[in-house]
Amino acid sequence: MELDAQQKIKFMQEALYEAQKAAAIAEVPIGCVIVSNGKIIGRGHNLREHSQDVTMHAEMIALQEANAAVKSWRLPDAQLFVTLEPCPMCSGAIINARIKETYYGAPDPKAGAAGSLLNLLEDQRFNHQVKVERGLLAAESSALLKSFFREIRQKRKKSKRED
Amino acid sequence: MELDAQQKIKFMQEALYEAQKAAAIAEVPIGCVIVSNGKIIGRGHNLREHSQDVTMHAEMIALQEANAAVKSWRLPDAQLFVTLEPCPMCSGAIINARIKETYYGAPDPKAGAAGSLLNLLEDQRFNHQVKVERGLLAAESSALLKSFFREIRQKRKKSKRED
Repeated sequence: MELDAQQKIKFMQEALYEAQKAAAIAEVPIGCVIVSNGKIIGRGHNLREHSQDVTMHAEMIALQEANAAVKSWRLPDAQLFVTLEPCPMCSGAIINARIKETYYGAPDPKAGAAGSLLNLLEDQRFNHQVKVERGLLAAESSALLKSFFREIRQKRKKSKRED
Repeated sequence: MELDAQQKIKFMQEALYEAQKAAAIAEVPIGCVIVSNGKIIGRGHNLREHSQDVTMHAEMIALQEANAAVKSWRLPDAQLFVTLEPCPMCSGAIINARIKETYYGAPDPKAGAAGSLLNLLEDQRFNHQVKVERGLLAAESSALLKSFFREIRQKRKKSKRED
């Protein structure tokens, strides 16, 4: 199912809502939703620190939930919305799951594997390519990340002063 | 801890043992172990079909088990042994976990991301590089995969004849 501009914004807002859940528990605020036939079938927010499990990125959790929802590791009709450009691990998982389209908010110049540092999703050498749309609600995604890291720096400064 | 040639073979044999567990339940036979201080702290074999979870590759399962064993998503002193060259998802996870060294058996010309199709593990642009050793017990790993796929083809032929 093709999504119109309004639907795309609505789903990225849901991904941002997931990112806020991560921020609320002091995880780097990254959120993701997966959509099939116009409905959300998987949601996830970054849980790396709470789980101490390196695989617990927002996209991986959302993919696992979507796989469980449709009882299949293949998600060929699905759209994935994530607030930050996926890393190589998540990009690889998105390809493996045969996701049709990926929409991301802010670019990640340090580890982005959907156009910034490298472009796995559109690499013609793999057995599946993913259509990518960049910069959807990028300002909101960036603002959330920036305010999170600013708060961490302020807390660190404060605790240093109290030492 | 540095591993000698005999230890490396021993750990790859353990990875092959994991791959055999996958074959025994009709999963593509790929196995992995993760070693720290000369001891196995994580094991995994491919469970994609049984779980219908796209993330359930041998390496991912072994990484999660190792994370749980040391109660940390970081595994900076660890060595990973896997029978088939890691895909982009698993290579990304190996980088994210700061794994020190990766040893693989058979190369994967279709999706290998540790030297064949691309080389994520040694890419200097990431914040961490992984030392790679290729071709350890490659013949055994390949033979296991080949006999698995041959058996599948024979079963398909047989079931076609019976139709």
